[in-house]
Amino acid sequence: MNSFGRLFRVHIFGESHGETVGIVIDGCPAGLSLAMDDFLNDIERRKGGVQKGTTPRKEDDLPIFKSGIFNGKTTGAPITILFENKNTRSGDYEKQKAVPRPGHADFTAHVKFGGNEDFRGGGHFSGRLTVCLVAAGVIAKKLLENVGISTNARITEIAGEKDLEKGLQKAIDQKDSVGGIVECTVNGLPIGLGEHFFDSVESLISHAVFAIPAVRGIEFGTGFAAAKMFGIDHNDAMIDEKGKTTSNHAGGIVGGITNGNPMVFRIAIKPTSSTPKEQESWNWETKQVESFSIKGRHDLCIALRVPVVLEAVTAIIMTDLMLLEQRIRRIL
Amino acid sequence: MNSFGRLFRVHIFGESHGETVGIVIDGCPAGLSLAMDDFLNDIERRKGGVQKGTTPRKEDDLPIFKSGIFNGKTTGAPITILFENKNTRSGDYEKQKAVPRPGHADFTAHVKFGGNEDFRGGGHFSGRLTVCLVAAGVIAKKLLENVGISTNARITEIAGEKDLEKGLQKAIDQKDSVGGIVECTVNGLPIGLGEHFFDSVESLISHAVFAIPAVRGIEFGTGFAAAKMFGIDHNDAMIDEKGKTTSNHAGGIVGGITNGNPMVFRIAIKPTSSTPKEQESWNWETKQVESFSIKGRHDLCIALRVPVVLEAVTAIIMTDLMLLEQRIRRIL
Amino acid sequence: MNSFGRLFRVHIFGESHGETVGIVIDGCPAGLSLAMDDFLNDIERRKGGVQKGTTPRKEDDLPIFKSGIFNGKTTGAPITILFENKNTRSGDYEKQKAVPRPGHADFTAHVKFGGNEDFRGGGHFSGRLTVCLVAAGVIAKKLLENVGISTNARITEIAGEKDLEKGLQKAIDQKDSVGGIVECTVNGLPIGLGEHFFDSVESLISHAVFAIPAVRGIEFGTGFAAAKMFGIDHNDAMIDEKGKTTSNHAGGIVGGITNGNPMVFRIAIKPTSSTPKEQESWNWETKQVESFSIKGRHDLCIALRVPVVLEAVTAIIMTDLMLLEQRIRRIL
Amino acid sequence: MNSFGRLFRVHIFGESHGETVGIVIDGCPAGLSLAMDDFLNDIERRKGGVQKGTTPRKEDDLPIFKSGIFNGKTTGAPITILFENKNTRSGDYEKQKAVPRPGHADFTAHVKFGGNEDFRGGGHFSGRLTVCLVAAGVIAKKLLENVGISTNARITEIAGEKDLEKGLQKAIDQKDSVGGIVECTVNGLPIGLGEHFFDSVESLISHAVFAIPAVRGIEFGTGFAAAKMFGIDHNDAMIDEKGKTTSNHAGGIVGGITNGNPMVFRIAIKPTSSTPKEQESWNWETKQVESFSIKGRHDLCIALRVPVVLEAVTAIIMTDLMLLEQRIRRIL
Repeated sequence: MNSFGRLFRVHIFGESHGETVGIVIDGCPAGLSLAMDDFLNDIERRKGGVQKGTTPRKEDDLPIFKSGIFNGKTTGAPITILFENKNTRSGDYEKQKAVPRPGHADFTAHVKFGGNEDFRGGGHFSGRLTVCLVAAGVIAKKLLENVGISTNARITEIAGEKDLEKGLQKAIDQKDSVGGIVECTVNGLPIGLGEHFFDSVESLISHAVFAIPAVRGIEFGTGFAAAKMFGIDHNDAMIDEKGKTTSNHAGGIVGGITNGNPMVFRIAIKPTSSTPKEQESWNWETKQVESFSIKGRHDLCIALRVPVVLEAVTAIIMTDLMLLEQRIRRIL
Repeated sequence: MNSFGRLFRVHIFGESHGETVGIVIDGCPAGLSLAMDDFLNDIERRKGGVQKGTTPRKEDDLPIFKSGIFNGKTTGAPITILFENKNTRSGDYEKQKAVPRPGHADFTAHVKFGGNEDFRGGGHFSGRLTVCLVAAGVIAKKLLENVGISTNARITEIAGEKDLEKGLQKAIDQKDSVGGIVECTVNGLPIGLGEHFFDSVESLISHAVFAIPAVRGIEFGTGFAAAKMFGIDHNDAMIDEKGKTTSNHAGGIVGGITNGNPMVFRIAIKPTSSTPKEQESWNWETKQVESFSIKGRHDLCIALRVPVVLEAVTAIIMTDLMLLEQRIRRIL
Repeated sequence: MNSFGRLFRVHIFGESHGETVGIVIDGCPAGLSLAMDDFLNDIERRKGGVQKGTTPRKEDDLPIFKSGIFNGKTTGAPITILFENKNTRSGDYEKQKAVPRPGHADFTAHVKFGGNEDFRGGGHFSGRLTVCLVAAGVIAKKLLENVGISTNARITEIAGEKDLEKGLQKAIDQKDSVGGIVECTVNGLPIGLGEHFFDSVESLISHAVFAIPAVRGIEFGTGFAAAKMFGIDHNDAMIDEKGKTTSNHAGGIVGGITNGNPMVFRIAIKPTSSTPKEQESWNWETKQVESFSIKGRHDLCIALRVPVVLEAVTAIIMTDLMLLEQRIRRIL
Repeated sequence: MNSFGRLFRVHIFGESHGETVGIVIDGCPAGLSLAMDDFLNDIERRKGGVQKGTTPRKEDDLPIFKSGIFNGKTTGAPITILFENKNTRSGDYEKQKAVPRPGHADFTAHVKFGGNEDFRGGGHFSGRLTVCLVAAGVIAKKLLENVGISTNARITEIAGEKDLEKGLQKAIDQKDSVGGIVECTVNGLPIGLGEHFFDSVESLISHAVFAIPAVRGIEFGTGFAAAKMFGIDHNDAMIDEKGKTTSNHAGGIVGGITNGNPMVFRIAIKPTSSTPKEQESWNWETKQVESFSIKGRHDLCIALRVPVVLEAVTAIIMTDLMLLEQRIRRIL
């Protein structure tokens, strides 16, 4: 299902080369002020900035509000936001449709949907739909701000380099795409969000994070490094009644529940599948392996676009958890 | 909520030092043969074997079938399985209850539940409840076997060592606990399980995996290493009509959907929080930091118990996905 | 939440006097042909026909397909359909907004959403949104037709009269609104849809039916009359291996599960709340009871519009149950 | 699925002639006092009292608490309650198993579960499981009492007679079973529970009510009588700022949302399917229609047992809605 959340719930729809992509946000408390201006900064951030390595495709991405807002405020009814798809060149895909692009959903979608999938630009599987998540994230972040919670994601590494310019230069030099690491921190969380077992904060965050295309891994706190540590070094000693700990190896979550320290996690983004390099794949019409190269506008490093999307899905979940724990009033 | 799954759905309950822990499994197709013998091997595996480093606590863990089985077969009604808790020494915990153990849910549960939590041995947060997941996993694995799918998890690293004995020896030498890495492989999956975005296979697997206590990270295929790779090296070239690829960096999942190659992922397990070392924590009665050490039976390396639990949650999800895609008939 | 269904799932949004109302349909199998023509008849039926008693408001209701359809077929991705709202006169409502109309959600919405509700024409609570359900119903009915299932609803009584013209004449003579009874029959259902207890067919049908505005009751088979019958008279004797029964007092459902006989149920529709008569209500600005009368275009008998909506929600549920029982292949 | 509820969620399991039936209650706030005594009165009421017409089967029904309660209070973890089945005579059913009893799920379960169903006494379909709902209802009612809400159900009619003794006498005279009407009233509800469309109060109540065996219909407020009324007579005029209305034809719910007046609804209960009269059914072994009569202990009027079960499911839903609207604090 293309839905996520229990009390603050999003539904996404649309295709990369269809007329629009969109999102329905159900469960947003009534009375939150929302205007076009609230959305512009995050939508701009999703374009990957003016940095080297991002696609020149111009997306004139203004949200179109279709429901749930009245007199500039949320009404409590579902909020629907559309984004038009412009400047698409679908012909590029028609020619290549029998040759599934490595790393894309072309083949799996083709089999799953019996050949009925919209194959143009990845169709419904496209990263294009993340603009909808960003829009929902703007609303969630605004709700969280009201109660003192902030969500911040940033790239910490590109192509194995902490110096991000250096990482991107690798891609340019190699005429290839590269991956990266994105870290997200949430400050201001109360103690007690999340539940034991299946609704642990890590469960919910990772569930939503793997909905972001190109994510290959996630780790909380010390993460994979924890597997090499001794217990005495990993444990965070609590030093006051508010739960403050001397270290934060747990990344702010113990027993699946927030412990009052900053929440910290990192995700791994693979190199953009649409590399400029020549590749091989199986052509299901000619029934043979053939070489091809992907033309057109593509990101050298898709990780550059991820931080704002990661903030969005994180904020969506934290809003849901805050509503569940009655830390945000349903009626503002 | 203590539930997971859409069509094959589990609900867990119970506390470490209560009378029983248990599970309700809803949605299991009717007609599957089930006997005590089916469960013994996996329950034994969960004890961590005779290897160094596992707790000597004797758990005489025989499943008690309460519903959903008739004449040795599943009926289609919910299956309820209980496990008795024996040999518990709750007094150990009563004395220490105002001093939250680092790495445990003692403090977060205390705040979340207003002091009403069953604090004995972690209560409902205890790893003890994973025996219930193992039981559900036995049923799921049996359903999957019928359609040629096998799930295998194994430890690949302890305390940073590929030689597992060496890793455990580190813990013994240091008189401390250690962590490890567990890898899971699923063979025989058809193409087309999972969905784009929120119900991607990675989303579902990671959601369930973080319900296992002590997990700090998860990665699929090349995982975090992908962030350092070039696109041309990471992409898996498809070479036949069945979706076979030359490499399997994607770990068998593209666009959130299985691609017919083996599914492979790894998880990081932190060192057991209950280290024998002296530690510090905040005493919420005396309102000061104090030193203490954890007595009693505890695992030096909890990762040793994880493989069978990881197989269980993986098999539960794959069964659910197979039912969703109608690859397992609801009536066998 | 504005969603319903497990595998075939709908999400509705929009307001009576907003720009559009719409629906997202998730889980529709790929490969179903869909064209504008499929929708026109049912949308026309929803207008209540040319019969006496329906509102003259002209709704030029053509579905606008936004996602999930490609080359005239469903793709397996969410289908989004919008309907524009035209010819709305919101000023009518602005003047009256402090006087909640009896029988409408004006007051309850005002309290629930803290005064932020879109009050124009009932906003999100409007019967206007049923056009979206009708559109989803068209898709569901087309899926069901492929497997030999048909859903038919008809009015059996208006204002207590079996002669429907006579019932409407009562309303016209009294210059008041009237209610009615609508009966729905589903033919061609296999044995075995639905589940014991919470997912009984009656549970699911009634859940969805009470989402239709103005419904006040529902009964299956003999319904309320059963409460006056003796057991021997009520029981349906089974007479062949296909489950055929001599009578059908059970309405085709036993133990919450379809038994192979036609499914039959009836719903009660209250008289249109917007009666032309003068009424009283509390004015929350002047803080006193005042008289008023509702102007404008309103149905004398809203029941006339209900049959096609009832078919729609019924077909949505039966499609979901057929998918759950694997009687409709997910890939057509 | 054998589950219901969003934040206060129940899962039932067990069979009539199995060892136990039981329920898991997830989402109950921590800190609620619970003792055996809280349950005895309602469990006794479910036996149908000492009135004529109830089965003499002695059910020594003491709840067995398995999880979620510690030191006499709820902990916030799932609460599990079992009831043992005693005094069952399964042999009665073995002999008759090829002859589906009219009005029971024998045939539909047999087809649905491929002959693997536990056929003894209706198995999982048995009214026996309602004792579990009653137990959950006790907890829900206790939570609601804390905030001033009371739930009361009573029989208003048996066999068409308002004089209940007279109705039962009809059954005795005719040596047959009879049905009845049960009315439920909820007092003390705040304005604003429930949602427009799919989560309307009527949707949720009716969904749960049809999980009670033998229910054939439900109506809110004036219900089916509304279909014969004029609008001006049906509309409830609001007369003060708290939403009080002169009449209560709406049964306390407008637009799917509680309006501050008492909630009132009625359900129709069919005559007990297990009538003492001789009946006919299809024998799927001999493949012919044959006569038989049902022996043993059965209720002449199952409606006598329904009020406490109806209170239970109603209280479960209202608790869920109160939690959703944050009217009950999750931590008491």
